[in-house]
Amino acid sequence: MDSLGFKELTKVDEAVERVLSLLRPLGVEEVSLEEAVGRVLAEDVYSSVDVPPFDRATMDGYAVRAVDTFGASKLNPVTLRVVRLEEGFALGEGEAVEIATGAPLPKGSDAVLPYEDTKRVDDVIEVYKPVPKLGNVSVKGEDVRRGELIGERGRIVQAWDLGVLASIGVKKVKVVRKPKVALFSIGNELIDLDEVDEPLEDKIINSSRFVLKGLLENIGAEVSYKGILPDDPLVIYKAILNSLNNYDVVVTTGGVSIGKKDKTVEAVKRLNPELLIRGLAIRPGKPTSLCVVNGKLIVMLSGYPVASSVGFEALLKPVLGRLMGMKPLPIPKVRGILTRKLVAPVNVRSYVRVRVFRRGKEIFIEPLAVTGSGILSTLTRGNGILVVPEDVEGYDEGKEVDVVLLRGIEEVE
Amino acid sequence: MDSLGFKELTKVDEAVERVLSLLRPLGVEEVSLEEAVGRVLAEDVYSSVDVPPFDRATMDGYAVRAVDTFGASKLNPVTLRVVRLEEGFALGEGEAVEIATGAPLPKGSDAVLPYEDTKRVDDVIEVYKPVPKLGNVSVKGEDVRRGELIGERGRIVQAWDLGVLASIGVKKVKVVRKPKVALFSIGNELIDLDEVDEPLEDKIINSSRFVLKGLLENIGAEVSYKGILPDDPLVIYKAILNSLNNYDVVVTTGGVSIGKKDKTVEAVKRLNPELLIRGLAIRPGKPTSLCVVNGKLIVMLSGYPVASSVGFEALLKPVLGRLMGMKPLPIPKVRGILTRKLVAPVNVRSYVRVRVFRRGKEIFIEPLAVTGSGILSTLTRGNGILVVPEDVEGYDEGKEVDVVLLRGIEEVE
Repeated sequence: MDSLGFKELTKVDEAVERVLSLLRPLGVEEVSLEEAVGRVLAEDVYSSVDVPPFDRATMDGYAVRAVDTFGASKLNPVTLRVVRLEEGFALGEGEAVEIATGAPLPKGSDAVLPYEDTKRVDDVIEVYKPVPKLGNVSVKGEDVRRGELIGERGRIVQAWDLGVLASIGVKKVKVVRKPKVALFSIGNELIDLDEVDEPLEDKIINSSRFVLKGLLENIGAEVSYKGILPDDPLVIYKAILNSLNNYDVVVTTGGVSIGKKDKTVEAVKRLNPELLIRGLAIRPGKPTSLCVVNGKLIVMLSGYPVASSVGFEALLKPVLGRLMGMKPLPIPKVRGILTRKLVAPVNVRSYVRVRVFRRGKEIFIEPLAVTGSGILSTLTRGNGILVVPEDVEGYDEGKEVDVVLLRGIEEVE
Repeated sequence: MDSLGFKELTKVDEAVERVLSLLRPLGVEEVSLEEAVGRVLAEDVYSSVDVPPFDRATMDGYAVRAVDTFGASKLNPVTLRVVRLEEGFALGEGEAVEIATGAPLPKGSDAVLPYEDTKRVDDVIEVYKPVPKLGNVSVKGEDVRRGELIGERGRIVQAWDLGVLASIGVKKVKVVRKPKVALFSIGNELIDLDEVDEPLEDKIINSSRFVLKGLLENIGAEVSYKGILPDDPLVIYKAILNSLNNYDVVVTTGGVSIGKKDKTVEAVKRLNPELLIRGLAIRPGKPTSLCVVNGKLIVMLSGYPVASSVGFEALLKPVLGRLMGMKPLPIPKVRGILTRKLVAPVNVRSYVRVRVFRRGKEIFIEPLAVTGSGILSTLTRGNGILVVPEDVEGYDEGKEVDVVLLRGIEEVE
C-alpha cells in the first residue's frame, strides 16, 4: 500500500491500451463543410475531379498563341487581331480572343496576355510584353488530380482544408461522431457556483466542473453537466446507470480517494464493469480510476481541479483522441533551463506546472508547487507543464528540459 | 510599377500600425464562466476572497493537535479521545474531532489525521502514524490571497482559468466583444458550392469563403457570409456601405488585382475612406488591400484561397488580435533542415507552405510550390508554413529554419 492507500497504481499507457480494447466505436455522421472544422475525418477523401477541370485562364486578358508574342516590347509592340471564335474553331496565327479569369482556354491558344500588357484600338491589340507558353494558364489537373487523396482518415479538418474540399465540389464529409460525455461532480462538501451568494463555511464551490467541461469541449466532446451527487453509492450508481444509455462516456470528479466517504468506486462496482482500474501512476491524480461497462467508459477523476485536469491530460485526452481516431494536432513546446532541482517519484508520471520566462536570450523553467493537488492557483500562475516520465527520478538545477507551453513566455527584466 | 501593377507595396507591420491607430475599439460584454472559454479578458481580475477562506481539512478524518500524534506507530499506537466540540470551545490535549474534507479546522487543532491512519473503538481512536503540524490542512489564503491578480486583461480565458475563477466565486467576467465580420466574395466567375450540381465550364466554386470563415472564427470573430457580388463597383459599394452599420469589419475576397474587371478598390473609394492601402508586401497576396471608413476596417483579400489565407495570416489576424487586446497563445513551431535552396523576393514577406518530415532523428523542411497562389493543394499537402522576413532573400539548401507547424510531423521510411 502506498501512502494514498492504493494497492497498486496502473501505468497510464497500460490503462489507455486496456481501456481502448474494450470501448465501442463512436460511429460516423455526415456534416456540411461549415460544420466540419475541428471534426475528425472518418474516411479518406479522394478527388473525383481534376482541378482545374480544363486549361484555365488565371488573369483577365486575351488568349493567344505564346509564339505570336515573342519579341514584343514597349518600343516594338507586336500586333494581334482580336477575333470571336465560333464553336469548334481554333485560334489562328496572329489572333487573340478576350478571356476572363477562370474561363477555359480556347483551342489553338496556349497562353493568356493580361490586359495591362496590351493596348486595344478597335479590333487590334498592341502587345508590349511577350507571354511564355502556358503563361497565366492553370493546366488541367495541375492543382489536384482526379483520384488524388485530399484528406486522410483521422485528419482534424482545418479551415484551409475546406478550400480544397469546396473546390472539388465536396458538399459534405463523413466525420467521427462527437463523444457524448455526462459529467458528474461528487461530494457532500460541494455546492454549485450559481447557488452561492456569499462565501460559505462548510461548502466548497464546485470548480472542477468548469475546468473539465472546457477541456473536454476543446478536444471535440459534447459535454452535459449533470450536477452534484452526494457521497451515496446508491445515488451515484443510479445516476451513472441512467447516463450509460444516452452517453458514450461518464466522467465524475470527486469521491474517489480511499476515504470513508469516497463512494464512487463502490458505486461503479455495482455496474459489473468488465474492467476496473483503481488508481493511476500519475502525479497529481493518483486516485484517478476508470472502468468499462458494456463498452462504455467511466472515468473517475479526483475532485481537485489540478488533479482532475492532470487526469484529463494523462488519461481522458489520449483515450478520447484514439477513440475518435484522431491524428492529434501539434502542441507548442519550448526548451528551457530548470531554475531548481526537481525531484519526482519513480514509476509515476508527474505533471509539474511551471512558469516559463525569458531573461535576456535564455529561457528558464521554474517548477511551481509540486505537491498539493488542491493548489488551484498554479493553474493560472503557470504557463507551462513539464511532464516527467515514469523512469525519471527528477532533474538537476540547470538541466535543459522541454515543456508544453500553455500561454506566452513571460519576459523578465 | 512591379509586375502586378501596384505602384508601391506597403510593408505589413506598417499597415497593421496605421490601421490600428484609426479603428474604433470593440467594447466590452459580460459573460458567464461557461461562455468565457476562448474569450479575451477585458479587465484585470482580482480575488476578493482568500482561498481557502479558513484553515481547511484536505482529507476526511480527525482534527487533532499534531503534537499529540508524535511517536505514533503501528506497533506503538497513540490513543486519542473523540469528542464533539461545543460552539466556541477549543480542542484540548489528547482530543480528536471528526472532520470532513473542506471543513474548517476547529480551534485548538492544527492537523488532520486521515481515517486510514487510525482505528476507532467507541469514542477512542488508535493513531498509527504521526501527522505533522498543518498536515492535511490547507491554510487560509495559501492558494489565492485576497487582492491577488487572477487573470490579467488580454488573457485568453482557458479551461483551467475557470477553476480559479469559480473557486473565488466569480460568476461572470468582462470580456472583449467579438468582432462582427461581414464576408463578401467578389467575382463574376464565382458560384457558391450549394448551387453546383456538376462541374461547370465557366464558373469557379467559391472556396475562399469557407477558408476565411474558418480562420476568422478560429481567432474569435463572429462571421456572416454575405454571398457573391458581381464585378460591379456600384453593387459592391452599396453592399459594403450597408454592412458598415452592423459589422465591425468587412472582409472581401476577390476583385482586387489590377485588372479591367477588378472593382473592389474602385467601390471602396466611394466610401471616402480615411485610409486606403493598396497592395501589401506579402507573397502570395500582393493585391491585399485595406481601408478604414468611419473607424471600421475593410480588408480586401485576393480571391485565391492560398493568397487570401496568407492575407489573413499577415494582416487580419494581427489586426483583429490587437483590436481585441489579445495576448496571443503560443503556436507550435519546429526547427528543421531545408531540403532545397529557397529564393524569396527582398522587401516582401513570403509565406511558403512546406512539408515537414522526420527521417531518422532529423527533421527536414521541404518547400512546396512557392509561386502560384492558385495552387490550392499546397494547403492540404503542406503541414507547415515558413515565413521569410522582408530582409531575407532566401535560404540555402541545408540551412536550419524554424517553421510554424499546422499538423503533425510526417514520419518517413
